[in-house]
Amino acid sequence: SVNPDLASERQTASFSVEKLTALLDGGTEQTQIRRAVVEVIESDPVFSRENQYFQTQNERYEAAVRKAVHLQRKMHEMGWTENGPEYKYIYRALSGDVAFLLHRVFMRSISVLGSDKQIAKWIPLASQHKLIGSYAQTELGHGTYLQGLETTAVFDSATQEFILNTPKISAMKWWPGDMGRSATHTVVFAQLYIHGKCYGIHPFIVQIRSLQDHSLCPGITAGDIGPKMNFEHIDNGYLLLKNVRIPRENMLSKFCEVRPDGTYVRQGSQKINYFTMTTVRISLISDEVLAPLMKACTIAIRYSVVRRQSKLKPGEQEAKILDYQTQQEKLLPQLAAAYAFHFINDYLQELFNRGYREIQRKNFDMLPELHALSSGFKAVITHHCTAGVEICLRACGGHGYSLLSGLPSLYTKILASCIYEGENTILLLQTARFLIKCFMAASAGQPVPPSVAYLAEVQHGRCPAKNKLDFLSPDIYTEAYQHVAVRLTSSTAAKLQDLIQSGVKKHDAWNQCTVQLVQAAKAHCHYIAVKNFAETVEKLETKAGIQKIMKHLCDLFALHGIFSNTGAFLHDGYTSAAQMDMVAASYLDLLAVIRKDAVPLVDAFDFTDKSLNSALGSYDGQVYQRLYEWAQKSPTNQMSPAYERYLKPLLHNTLSKL
Amino acid sequence: SVNPDLASERQTASFSVEKLTALLDGGTEQTQIRRAVVEVIESDPVFSRENQYFQTQNERYEAAVRKAVHLQRKMHEMGWTENGPEYKYIYRALSGDVAFLLHRVFMRSISVLGSDKQIAKWIPLASQHKLIGSYAQTELGHGTYLQGLETTAVFDSATQEFILNTPKISAMKWWPGDMGRSATHTVVFAQLYIHGKCYGIHPFIVQIRSLQDHSLCPGITAGDIGPKMNFEHIDNGYLLLKNVRIPRENMLSKFCEVRPDGTYVRQGSQKINYFTMTTVRISLISDEVLAPLMKACTIAIRYSVVRRQSKLKPGEQEAKILDYQTQQEKLLPQLAAAYAFHFINDYLQELFNRGYREIQRKNFDMLPELHALSSGFKAVITHHCTAGVEICLRACGGHGYSLLSGLPSLYTKILASCIYEGENTILLLQTARFLIKCFMAASAGQPVPPSVAYLAEVQHGRCPAKNKLDFLSPDIYTEAYQHVAVRLTSSTAAKLQDLIQSGVKKHDAWNQCTVQLVQAAKAHCHYIAVKNFAETVEKLETKAGIQKIMKHLCDLFALHGIFSNTGAFLHDGYTSAAQMDMVAASYLDLLAVIRKDAVPLVDAFDFTDKSLNSALGSYDGQVYQRLYEWAQKSPTNQMSPAYERYLKPLLHNTLSKL
Repeated sequence: SVNPDLASERQTASFSVEKLTALLDGGTEQTQIRRAVVEVIESDPVFSRENQYFQTQNERYEAAVRKAVHLQRKMHEMGWTENGPEYKYIYRALSGDVAFLLHRVFMRSISVLGSDKQIAKWIPLASQHKLIGSYAQTELGHGTYLQGLETTAVFDSATQEFILNTPKISAMKWWPGDMGRSATHTVVFAQLYIHGKCYGIHPFIVQIRSLQDHSLCPGITAGDIGPKMNFEHIDNGYLLLKNVRIPRENMLSKFCEVRPDGTYVRQGSQKINYFTMTTVRISLISDEVLAPLMKACTIAIRYSVVRRQSKLKPGEQEAKILDYQTQQEKLLPQLAAAYAFHFINDYLQELFNRGYREIQRKNFDMLPELHALSSGFKAVITHHCTAGVEICLRACGGHGYSLLSGLPSLYTKILASCIYEGENTILLLQTARFLIKCFMAASAGQPVPPSVAYLAEVQHGRCPAKNKLDFLSPDIYTEAYQHVAVRLTSSTAAKLQDLIQSGVKKHDAWNQCTVQLVQAAKAHCHYIAVKNFAETVEKLETKAGIQKIMKHLCDLFALHGIFSNTGAFLHDGYTSAAQMDMVAASYLDLLAVIRKDAVPLVDAFDFTDKSLNSALGSYDGQVYQRLYEWAQKSPTNQMSPAYERYLKPLLHNTLSKL
Repeated sequence: SVNPDLASERQTASFSVEKLTALLDGGTEQTQIRRAVVEVIESDPVFSRENQYFQTQNERYEAAVRKAVHLQRKMHEMGWTENGPEYKYIYRALSGDVAFLLHRVFMRSISVLGSDKQIAKWIPLASQHKLIGSYAQTELGHGTYLQGLETTAVFDSATQEFILNTPKISAMKWWPGDMGRSATHTVVFAQLYIHGKCYGIHPFIVQIRSLQDHSLCPGITAGDIGPKMNFEHIDNGYLLLKNVRIPRENMLSKFCEVRPDGTYVRQGSQKINYFTMTTVRISLISDEVLAPLMKACTIAIRYSVVRRQSKLKPGEQEAKILDYQTQQEKLLPQLAAAYAFHFINDYLQELFNRGYREIQRKNFDMLPELHALSSGFKAVITHHCTAGVEICLRACGGHGYSLLSGLPSLYTKILASCIYEGENTILLLQTARFLIKCFMAASAGQPVPPSVAYLAEVQHGRCPAKNKLDFLSPDIYTEAYQHVAVRLTSSTAAKLQDLIQSGVKKHDAWNQCTVQLVQAAKAHCHYIAVKNFAETVEKLETKAGIQKIMKHLCDLFALHGIFSNTGAFLHDGYTSAAQMDMVAASYLDLLAVIRKDAVPLVDAFDFTDKSLNSALGSYDGQVYQRLYEWAQKSPTNQMSPAYERYLKPLLHNTLSKL
């Protein structure tokens, strides 16, 4: 039975939840396929996550391997293939709690970087799991800065082999998933040396464990890097290489080859390779970043209409905590951001599909823009969503702090997304470099890519809003965001120029501007996100109340950004203090409006109880019963040796005399 | 041997590290005592935290109990007493990793709330550990709002007993520390009923487990609430009471008594009791909040001078990451905040000692101000320090994400401080209520407490700064902070008045202002923190370079607050855009100045390697070696059954046919 405090929230929905779900899925057919996949996965006990919060790192790893192996069977049984429509829903249905994800990266890197011959040899072996692959790039001493990697691969023409070494401790491979305990093979990135000359980073296939008994191969030292904030199910590993010899044919050679005599040959274009990096950054957004924020919103908002605390009005019943303005101000902007980022994700996917088609036609013009957008949005979305999950956690008070709420795990996992696939600050600076370059070009009257064309437009000096309702006009707020993005880019470009003209060296000048460059890159992405949300709302069908509620969320997303960062808008007087008070008024009004639909808006995300795995967030809102039931199953409710060893002697005064 | 990249940082310190340590400790004698305590604790293997990151919740609990019991012996052996000068350093030296902390709260509550007779009976039993106490206040359904607690204690005059019940699942006691597995007794807070009339919340001593065999007493259901984000060593518990009878003498009766005939008598003043609540909030700041931030700064800053990544200047060696402006901008403001909050903690301690002396003289005038300051600063400091630890964690990239860095545990533990001892938003609203009240009084010409006297002062309309160096003047920035605090308080007071005058009910009007009231309360605390830091610097001896570096940190703390929240200062034109550019320039200049002394500034916190328990933060900076050594000890480097069960059959193709 549904908690009546939660049930009542659903009766007054201003829109059709089912239709909004279909919109998010991209059509009712997609919704059906997704639900069918979820049903199959969740009804299979092997995939259960029920005891997850009680398990050790070892138990989590074992379960993830079991799931990965079982998944192969399941896919065969269900007729699901890697190219089928179900495939993209499987990982989400498993909440990513499965092993061998790097095995797929191993295969992809061979497909992209390997010669036809290499593909023909390795891909069938990998597909049939005759080996387990990994991908060994990051080292103890180097992450995002790939050029600094220290592992070496020296060509020995006498034996037609490469000799691989990690010459210093900092060169040790560190972090590769599936490598700590599972993998038999891995793709090692190393500095290629031929006849004493370094040719830079290249990829090599290296066997690290015996296919017979899984023992480490000669010259290999490998193991697990130990406890992490999350990802207990993954065996992130370390790898030391000592004079490990591999045949010449094991260097992945689609783009570069070492001939038997040691001649180094570069062939074809590596540009498509950079494109792969940018698509990975976009592809992680949906499952790794948006889903966790949507789950956190679902949990925190359902809990906030079930939890009653203190009295709003003397003499009345205690109020639902979501009726407090401060609670609305914590949660509803996160909900709006989840929708905003869902739509920007659609936009980016579409843009990248277009880019891919162009690249296949050997047109690489879009690459710099795509790189800048993927870097910037990866950083901005992971940052916002991580902060959003943390806000949801804190907004649930003590119960949010229990692992049983599901929120701590969502937080500790999403946090990693700010670091992996390019550290956020470094990515933002790459976006900023592109912005500065385009701004200079635009100022000189040269053409620039579409997403930055606004940098060349004439800017209005003043926001035209006259009352608080004007701030519910997308034109008004989108223009304000645009103005800020232009101002931050142009003022930082000017500072950079000034420094260089005053004699500061170029790289020093750049470093002295980086704090402001990061701000400019963020403002650029924020502007595009707001603009895209407004354009998306415009295009929605007006039926079923969906456009109306999406418009409210779009307004909230935009005004929250202004309200939380007023200085950027006030700085040059584009927005006046009086206008900022209007923004605050409209923003706070919107909270009360969206609050009414808060539960239907999270219901539309359509997470099952099993996928939330949360005592606070279930569909029926029976929070306290579930917390109590789950707690009783905790291993901490088994007898502890501490009683016989320490408590009993203490209480019975039989400890050796104090 | 010390990593040369770290060693070189220490050679150029602009001040005496040892003298700064003594300043932080409150004198060289204190430093000596502290170091002696740390030496004793850390040289005893029972207190080791070496394997902490590898342990399960059950193992952590057992270790904490062992340490607590051993600590009794140790204190006896060393001649340390609860009133001795060593006492306050013990908990810090243990990093809080010890059981029976609630036993002390149990004792304190009896001392404060119990009659002389009750004290005489229970305190000796507790002191000699003939029982283990806990403190059962929070319920599944109620936390900070104590009036809403649902546990009942009904007086039965026939038997001269109270009958205790948790009538609904939401009334179940939930969270009390030491209660899940250890405690034999607890202080239960329950609604007192006499002859059907409710007298509100009162404290009752209840035995929950047998002193003989530790089995649960009749009518008692109790256990552990399971996994949490941290505090694995503490057995936070649940407690159900079903018709549990306790003698009339077990109601703590210093302030309220139930006579044998059921007459309810209130005696004495409860005000001192409220004072206890406020002192607890202050007392937790040092050990639970400041120490973790200081540790996180130590770890992240030492790591940032050892980690080299990418090149600042083409052709040169890779740069220390602390040389990047963006890294400085992440870490150095956290370092400045750690000092700022250390000094505000001194200020609050002194104020509370004065308050205590006044209260002992039956003068309760200071209570409202002390309550407002303790609430506001508890919220502001826990919030800032939690955010600061998270920034330090992220600033260490992937290695910060490993538990071995120490940073995840610091973060997950300090996060709880935002919730316990009063949820932060609720506390800020209590401070805001006091501010509004004082502002109204001051506006009407009535006297107000010293810390809010500034609300009555005439405000300047414009910041007088003329160049960026002016913003290194404490008068300039302190006044700016004051201006913002007054503006936010007065504008919110005006909004509140307007709403009420327009016919909105008082409680609704209050709710509609709460987002802004929270901002006002934060601004008030931030102003006091800046002012106090500036005044502290003023008073420092000018020798040994300490005043100079503290002045830099004070400037950085103040300017970082303006730079990160420019809107508040720009809003009414108090600060102009041109002045804001000066703030940015001075702020960014300061980063480069303080960067030079960053390592000496964290060295002065004087944490031993054992207390940091971090592979990244050790004094010698041998980061990579330590990560590798520690990882090898992880239980995830033992053989997993996953190989025989799943990997081998998969690789040998002996899984039942796919």
